[in-house]
Amino acid sequence: MSIDTLDRESLGSLLSTQRAAYEDLRSRGLALDITRGKPSPAQLDLSRELLSLPGDGDYRSADGTDTRNYGGLEGLVELREIFSELLGVPVAQLLAQGNSSLTLMHDTLVWALLHGFPESSRPWAAEETVRFLCPVPGYDRHFTLLESFGIEMIPVDMREDGPDLDQVAGLVATDPTIKGMWLVPTYANPTGGVTSPEVAARLMAMPAAAPDFRLFWDNAYAVHHLSDEESAASDVLSVAAAGGHPDRVLIFASTSKITYAGAGVAFFGSSPANVAWFKSHLKFASIGPDKVNQLRHVRLFRDADGVRALMRRHRDLLAPKFDVVDEVLRDRLGPHDVATWTRPTGGYFVSLDVVDGTAARVVELAKGVGVSLTPAGASFPYGKDPRDRNIRIAPSFPSVDDVRAAMEVLATCVLLAAAEKALA
Amino acid sequence: MSIDTLDRESLGSLLSTQRAAYEDLRSRGLALDITRGKPSPAQLDLSRELLSLPGDGDYRSADGTDTRNYGGLEGLVELREIFSELLGVPVAQLLAQGNSSLTLMHDTLVWALLHGFPESSRPWAAEETVRFLCPVPGYDRHFTLLESFGIEMIPVDMREDGPDLDQVAGLVATDPTIKGMWLVPTYANPTGGVTSPEVAARLMAMPAAAPDFRLFWDNAYAVHHLSDEESAASDVLSVAAAGGHPDRVLIFASTSKITYAGAGVAFFGSSPANVAWFKSHLKFASIGPDKVNQLRHVRLFRDADGVRALMRRHRDLLAPKFDVVDEVLRDRLGPHDVATWTRPTGGYFVSLDVVDGTAARVVELAKGVGVSLTPAGASFPYGKDPRDRNIRIAPSFPSVDDVRAAMEVLATCVLLAAAEKALA
Repeated sequence: MSIDTLDRESLGSLLSTQRAAYEDLRSRGLALDITRGKPSPAQLDLSRELLSLPGDGDYRSADGTDTRNYGGLEGLVELREIFSELLGVPVAQLLAQGNSSLTLMHDTLVWALLHGFPESSRPWAAEETVRFLCPVPGYDRHFTLLESFGIEMIPVDMREDGPDLDQVAGLVATDPTIKGMWLVPTYANPTGGVTSPEVAARLMAMPAAAPDFRLFWDNAYAVHHLSDEESAASDVLSVAAAGGHPDRVLIFASTSKITYAGAGVAFFGSSPANVAWFKSHLKFASIGPDKVNQLRHVRLFRDADGVRALMRRHRDLLAPKFDVVDEVLRDRLGPHDVATWTRPTGGYFVSLDVVDGTAARVVELAKGVGVSLTPAGASFPYGKDPRDRNIRIAPSFPSVDDVRAAMEVLATCVLLAAAEKALA
Repeated sequence: MSIDTLDRESLGSLLSTQRAAYEDLRSRGLALDITRGKPSPAQLDLSRELLSLPGDGDYRSADGTDTRNYGGLEGLVELREIFSELLGVPVAQLLAQGNSSLTLMHDTLVWALLHGFPESSRPWAAEETVRFLCPVPGYDRHFTLLESFGIEMIPVDMREDGPDLDQVAGLVATDPTIKGMWLVPTYANPTGGVTSPEVAARLMAMPAAAPDFRLFWDNAYAVHHLSDEESAASDVLSVAAAGGHPDRVLIFASTSKITYAGAGVAFFGSSPANVAWFKSHLKFASIGPDKVNQLRHVRLFRDADGVRALMRRHRDLLAPKFDVVDEVLRDRLGPHDVATWTRPTGGYFVSLDVVDGTAARVVELAKGVGVSLTPAGASFPYGKDPRDRNIRIAPSFPSVDDVRAAMEVLATCVLLAAAEKALA
């Protein structure tokens, strides 16, 4: 029965039932963590060959380059070919780099701040104000990175098919201090939303007051499907060119959730002009990426189908955990109408909206019985969720049983906080 | 006989002899390259185990961390322990990072420009002018990195025992725009000079007009000995503290010339305050370095003695090449008094000073017969050698025979250019 329809007596009864359940949980001494989107050990085991690759005597890339020595700013072409197919970026416009796409985003921002893009009238650091649009809820590291550079953040709503276009288009068209925007186009963190081709087309065609406006297209989950409904990476560079803004989009991706988290390979892709710009600054900072690690990945994957096959094995391990999240939330919260949540078809997260004003309380309650949740507000700029309602659930790392146990706790805490609030 | 004592007839005879020798070289169709400090394939083979390390099932660091997953900004403690001993930096103040110390230098400069150091009154990018002292001849990538950020460079002379202190101390004490200085303290690129303990002590004690003055201590060749005269890394952090400037020095190093060039591990070391500063910015740019590659290196090295043993095998391969460089220069140029050159006890380079005003001509002549030399002037800020006399020789990559052939060409070109000049 919806909590809104309960009288005070029924609410009191709900409250005492959940309090009793909560006290019972406290006595169990749980220690569960569903805070970060980390692959599980079983997922990491899928790439166990990587620990002994490329193998004795194997160090030459396809063109004969000795990967053990200096050189080659772009990364190994055979690895770029594999991800060209998977990310929808021409090989010549795709760079294979180091172990972290976050680092590539950082470096891009740094060079924009210190040098500006070709169309910039001055380096971004020389501007009075630089603002970014931030679809919310979103990825906390995107927001803290901007905050570290004093870039102001304007939240816009994230929907199932991408960011709210009315908000975005209006702001970008009129405010020349808006220089950029984050977007996780495929299986967004944390909503799981997939930016539709229509929304992508409008994002690429909309007028921008800032001539150097850039869309930071963090395709972190491009091939991370959880169902047969596999969202293909759209050919966003062609869409951008067709929209009249060929240099608008900067594409980031990595193998952190394909092979090893933080020991894989990251990618930067964009228009020829942006790639030339990126390399023109990168060449001072690096003699080239770790090509031996790139060769390891080539040997492991073989080709794009090798990546796809590996991702299906990830799905086999991950999908049951997402099923449990949905099952427990549906069973425990569904009848009370106290929450909504996403049922992603890919990615690493479930986004849970609880009763307004109770997310921080839920996180606090869960902590009290040994379940760590991402801090309330983390998915918003400056850590501030204006409605204090969003909680990010990351079920990938714990076992299925632990995910179930953590979700039971979470459900109890959501109900308890909702009842507390209704009676307050 | 010294070229200075020759009459015009003897000079003419020298010129025609060298011209004939040069024409003979041209007919040989050589293709030799002594431009870059790259390890040879035989050196890279010394670390062949690395291609199959850490090995199947081996992914836990000493403290039980799964290196295949996210986390740990500082790098593996067991690798930091090994290089703590070799670099003379306490473990807690030494970070193990990615594949490139150049990238760490870039990032340090970037954060100084965008944030400043703790004692900075504003970010360096907000200053009218930022200047660096650059010991010359020096490392071209140090200079191009500064130039890319518009940082002005002031050359100071590099001597056998370190930078010229009279020049350095006078400038640093009086010019508050001088925010930094490069130094390769051990087996400098390209002179092979070793900064003595006395010079290091004075560098750390001298007054600086800029409160945030920093010495970029690029210890790229800390363990890269070529003789029994092994220069130990001085405990420069203690020297800095004793000199009253504990936060003055930033230490960089890597395994690029220990294991694989561009596929190794880089290090940043400094005072507790500087390390905290570095991490306070790094944490936005990275979730952590590639720990699996760090584990590979731990397994290969085992301990500091393992690194020392490996470096002795490098020396066995490198020393004969340096001997050939000295032998040919002595035999061919010695009698004519047309050049001076260094006889380094470590590192990767020989610095050759030819007759003033002829270095560019020598490089041009060598190119004409198929021998690539580092461009004249490359070892100076803005690529400008004021006396046009310095040439950097990098004998590590070619075989001993190729080094000999290239040096014979170089000697001929040096003599030819000297004779041309004397007769001009």
